[in-house]
Amino acid sequence: MSWEDNCDSLCPIARALTEVGDRWTLLILRELSFGVHRFEEIQAQTEMSSHSLASRLKRMEEAEIVVRRLYSTRPDRYEYFATDKGKDLDAVLLALRAWNLKWDRRSDGEEFAVKLVHKKSGELIDGHWQNPPGESFSFDHTDARMSDSYRAEREGKRQKFSAGKRRR
Amino acid sequence: MSWEDNCDSLCPIARALTEVGDRWTLLILRELSFGVHRFEEIQAQTEMSSHSLASRLKRMEEAEIVVRRLYSTRPDRYEYFATDKGKDLDAVLLALRAWNLKWDRRSDGEEFAVKLVHKKSGELIDGHWQNPPGESFSFDHTDARMSDSYRAEREGKRQKFSAGKRRR
Repeated sequence: MSWEDNCDSLCPIARALTEVGDRWTLLILRELSFGVHRFEEIQAQTEMSSHSLASRLKRMEEAEIVVRRLYSTRPDRYEYFATDKGKDLDAVLLALRAWNLKWDRRSDGEEFAVKLVHKKSGELIDGHWQNPPGESFSFDHTDARMSDSYRAEREGKRQKFSAGKRRR
Repeated sequence: MSWEDNCDSLCPIARALTEVGDRWTLLILRELSFGVHRFEEIQAQTEMSSHSLASRLKRMEEAEIVVRRLYSTRPDRYEYFATDKGKDLDAVLLALRAWNLKWDRRSDGEEFAVKLVHKKSGELIDGHWQNPPGESFSFDHTDARMSDSYRAEREGKRQKFSAGKRRR
């Protein structure tokens, strides 16, 4: 059984995993929440092949997790945005982030790759932070600041991707 | 890049996804939280091949997400249990469940596959429920009742698995 199968289980976790499936959907949503909307920039950061990324985005569109908008013609080029349904996976991303921050010893004492502060309360969002009652979590409710080292990691990926393109 | 690669990113979401990876780890943890601990019973419910399940459980042991305990000898047979680190992924499972309950129109008006009630507060855990502040979520804090139809789905999987074994 591959994750692409339609899921006829009654279990909502199994159903959710049919749409979220593997790491790629969530990594793409992470990029969109960072304000990265263009195909090649998403590709550079996720290190997916263009074929995998195209088919994944298509599937995410069908599942109404993302929408695309034309931003340039000849050739047509699109930007991708999370829908409300897609943004609602922010809670899943946050739970994964918290879990890693709590359990991955590599994170101890390390600067946050992205320092997140909850706008309304001014609280630092770490592995133990809890969303205020009555509000669903969204990265839109946070101020995010990338560390210099994480920024450098991302710049490295951009350069590696551009170099790969020039060689082709 | 496959999810089995070591992740040298600074991003905690990417790191978490390296360990959680795809649907299988989460579906196995779902089974453990249902009290299903034996290899063949997990296999029947997840519909994984025995090779995939064995290698995934080994990887989850290495990541300290599960531990195994010998329960029978000649041949040695083990039961698998979530560690504290593994149980802490309950928050991720809960977020996926909530997301599906909110967005999957198939779930509208359908009985919960597993009706979850938060023990301490007596609240029904639906797609909008929020964990009380100061407490991390665990299925251990809930009373769970499977619907008859979900029970039947699981019984069907058990029978299909046993029939497959007899044919081999």
